[in-house]
Amino acid sequence: MINVLIYNENLHEQHSEKVRSVYPQGIHGCLRSFLESDDICVKTVTLDSVNDITDELLDKTDVIIWWGHMGHAQVPDEVAARVQAAVLKGMGAIFLHSGHHSKPFRLLMGTSCNLSWREDGDFERVWVAKPTHPIAKGVKRYIFSEHEETYAEPFDVPEPDVTVFIGGFEGGEVFRSGLCYRRGAGKIFYFQPGHETFPIYYNPDVQTVIKNAVYWAKPDCRLEKLDAPQVKKPGKDGE
Amino acid sequence: MINVLIYNENLHEQHSEKVRSVYPQGIHGCLRSFLESDDICVKTVTLDSVNDITDELLDKTDVIIWWGHMGHAQVPDEVAARVQAAVLKGMGAIFLHSGHHSKPFRLLMGTSCNLSWREDGDFERVWVAKPTHPIAKGVKRYIFSEHEETYAEPFDVPEPDVTVFIGGFEGGEVFRSGLCYRRGAGKIFYFQPGHETFPIYYNPDVQTVIKNAVYWAKPDCRLEKLDAPQVKKPGKDGE
Amino acid sequence: MINVLIYNENLHEQHSEKVRSVYPQGIHGCLRSFLESDDICVKTVTLDSVNDITDELLDKTDVIIWWGHMGHAQVPDEVAARVQAAVLKGMGAIFLHSGHHSKPFRLLMGTSCNLSWREDGDFERVWVAKPTHPIAKGVKRYIFSEHEETYAEPFDVPEPDVTVFIGGFEGGEVFRSGLCYRRGAGKIFYFQPGHETFPIYYNPDVQTVIKNAVYWAKPDCRLEKLDAPQVKKPGKDGE
Amino acid sequence: MINVLIYNENLHEQHSEKVRSVYPQGIHGCLRSFLESDDICVKTVTLDSVNDITDELLDKTDVIIWWGHMGHAQVPDEVAARVQAAVLKGMGAIFLHSGHHSKPFRLLMGTSCNLSWREDGDFERVWVAKPTHPIAKGVKRYIFSEHEETYAEPFDVPEPDVTVFIGGFEGGEVFRSGLCYRRGAGKIFYFQPGHETFPIYYNPDVQTVIKNAVYWAKPDCRLEKLDAPQVKKPGKDGE
Repeated sequence: MINVLIYNENLHEQHSEKVRSVYPQGIHGCLRSFLESDDICVKTVTLDSVNDITDELLDKTDVIIWWGHMGHAQVPDEVAARVQAAVLKGMGAIFLHSGHHSKPFRLLMGTSCNLSWREDGDFERVWVAKPTHPIAKGVKRYIFSEHEETYAEPFDVPEPDVTVFIGGFEGGEVFRSGLCYRRGAGKIFYFQPGHETFPIYYNPDVQTVIKNAVYWAKPDCRLEKLDAPQVKKPGKDGE
Repeated sequence: MINVLIYNENLHEQHSEKVRSVYPQGIHGCLRSFLESDDICVKTVTLDSVNDITDELLDKTDVIIWWGHMGHAQVPDEVAARVQAAVLKGMGAIFLHSGHHSKPFRLLMGTSCNLSWREDGDFERVWVAKPTHPIAKGVKRYIFSEHEETYAEPFDVPEPDVTVFIGGFEGGEVFRSGLCYRRGAGKIFYFQPGHETFPIYYNPDVQTVIKNAVYWAKPDCRLEKLDAPQVKKPGKDGE
Repeated sequence: MINVLIYNENLHEQHSEKVRSVYPQGIHGCLRSFLESDDICVKTVTLDSVNDITDELLDKTDVIIWWGHMGHAQVPDEVAARVQAAVLKGMGAIFLHSGHHSKPFRLLMGTSCNLSWREDGDFERVWVAKPTHPIAKGVKRYIFSEHEETYAEPFDVPEPDVTVFIGGFEGGEVFRSGLCYRRGAGKIFYFQPGHETFPIYYNPDVQTVIKNAVYWAKPDCRLEKLDAPQVKKPGKDGE
Repeated sequence: MINVLIYNENLHEQHSEKVRSVYPQGIHGCLRSFLESDDICVKTVTLDSVNDITDELLDKTDVIIWWGHMGHAQVPDEVAARVQAAVLKGMGAIFLHSGHHSKPFRLLMGTSCNLSWREDGDFERVWVAKPTHPIAKGVKRYIFSEHEETYAEPFDVPEPDVTVFIGGFEGGEVFRSGLCYRRGAGKIFYFQPGHETFPIYYNPDVQTVIKNAVYWAKPDCRLEKLDAPQVKKPGKDGE
């Protein structure tokens, strides 16, 4: 059983009827609906309950999925630091769309995570750059979205371990849309699709990718704690 | 079931009584003995039968393990090219010790794969640099070998995806002893321990690592063929 | 003074009047015309004279630029191996457009270097993904080409050290168009623009990039030879 | 002229006569003494004056060198954030020895930067793993230090762009001692030698490496600000 924790700030859903009409159960509700299965157990947290993201909860979480945008600054620094530490100890993390600017993602990347953007409802093709990667399993040459917010390079992140997807937008921009990282004991996947006003998370291909990413990001190994141990001179026994 | 193909040139075993006394069934026999299990099915090939490494056999192989040294040059170029192509299509590959200079490893790396060396029977500690990597599972801080051939930096390989092990030798030298790469659809692991005159492959920790590497390297996905397709202008259907 | 060696197979120029009309002095002549300067000394070689690419010439070459397409197979294996070895010893190398399938590039990458393609004369924008990289100096957000052959992902190369450019084509495809690698002591840049029937190499931005790449790829350090030395046990003197 | 800013917390020098006897002008004074030249202009800051590290000063700094240990926590978060931002805009950064746990280094890496350690005054050989890298220029096979604090793997940092040095200690431990990173527009070098009670920074080879690193890390390009711009739909002019 894989324990998934979905964080969605759930602000756009409250403030905008349009968003509410697309995601009546919130983006977290939509994500939960296609992830929950015999293999995957889902919990959700929103900005209202962000302090529920305790060390105890994170220790029991295999993969966290993060959607945030207008409420990034309201996530307490301590919560962001806890998420970072949990990833370094082995928890997987999937950051969606505007989550590129969330506190935990920026902490893990060490860079500004800035990008260029415009909002014209362009269509997008998310091209598969690494078709044999487990996260791309089941996707054809590209994923098509009728309308999407345009994200554009330069994307200020460290060079990824693997570039799985590259998006191409109607207006011409390109963007590295699916990126894998290893930090500490944890695996991180950034996935660009997902503007709140478009029904992106109903797209079966997008759902396939997020589900694949959950399986990919689940821990190989968990550390009980991060530490910098003073050690003894080694002998012949591997201790 | 994981299908493993072990290539061992099996020359030292024929030419040296000392080597024969350490590995009476050949290095391939020793590797086979600890790998074969309910999960893992092993076939072996030696230099005598190297042309048995056909495309048909490779298509059925999940992971190849390669041990060679004095017979590198006798491996036909076509066989080496077949192994390279099979890796690019998804087959895993584990290169042991002097396999750093084998034709398939050099083809896959694109570099000289040169290193410095001396043969004084130094002890070695193979330190775990990435303890949470699946290949290091079950190993303590380091693996100890009473006697080993000394391999030393600089090791002329591309920067690895992950440095899992770094060896330290009695005389002082250091060497990146366990390195992971992805090339095409395949995963590659280089592992330094294993001189023919020392009983390295009887070390339980070394066996653990090689077994872990088999599980790690098995294909996520296999390509039927490598190709450079002419494609049609994309539509909206992902084809 | 930077010594640049341009290899252009010069076959399309002989066989096609259209190509000849675009590049009356050959692609190599065009490249030479904008590179030659007080700092840069250019020599050129074509397929007719490919055996002039000797070790002696390569030892005096700081950066090789490679354009080939229909004549890849006619480049002798020994010449390709010499170029590979020279790069590993420190020579810079720039592979242009269809040079992705040249023998030396494939040897250095270790992968198939396959890509998808179509030839519809689409326009292309080559977007700058890493604007602060020295190779991108002087380029705005993107380079525009009125007509280009379409190259598309997946591009089967190892993950690059830096993704400097990503191309987006009129028909929608995307492609990692500018990639940096270090192999051995040498630096390698792959740059996608440059179909033979379009006047791409007259584009001032394309010229800027190729010129920048020459400065970037020139050796930091040259090895006299590639070797795998037997060494002595170390003392305290760094020898 | 390269403008170098040396930060040394200068606490051990105040609290310990032993340290003061080794570094009577402080570690910063020692570093300054061998760096200052016709090409390099040095300023120094200590923990007492850490708030002098303003954006204005960082904008004029080409490379910062950071030595800290017991006073890491006393460096204000705002100062650490300023240093991080300056690196992302292009300033080079060299972190020495216990600087692996400094706030700016941890911010830039995104990981715990933990390592194992013991303090027995072991000798160390810092082996050159990439002899053709500009930072290793002028160093033989290794740098020898009679006494050094022992640092040991695992070192919890992201996989580096280049592993330039690997240390081997008398007691047997190994450690990745010289690591290069690119983050944003900036270049970062971590270099392990330098315990406060040993005269490491008087070692001519160590001085050579730090000097080389200054030349290597100086900016290729500076950004005026980090931003995430809203952009217009692209045309044909590269704007």
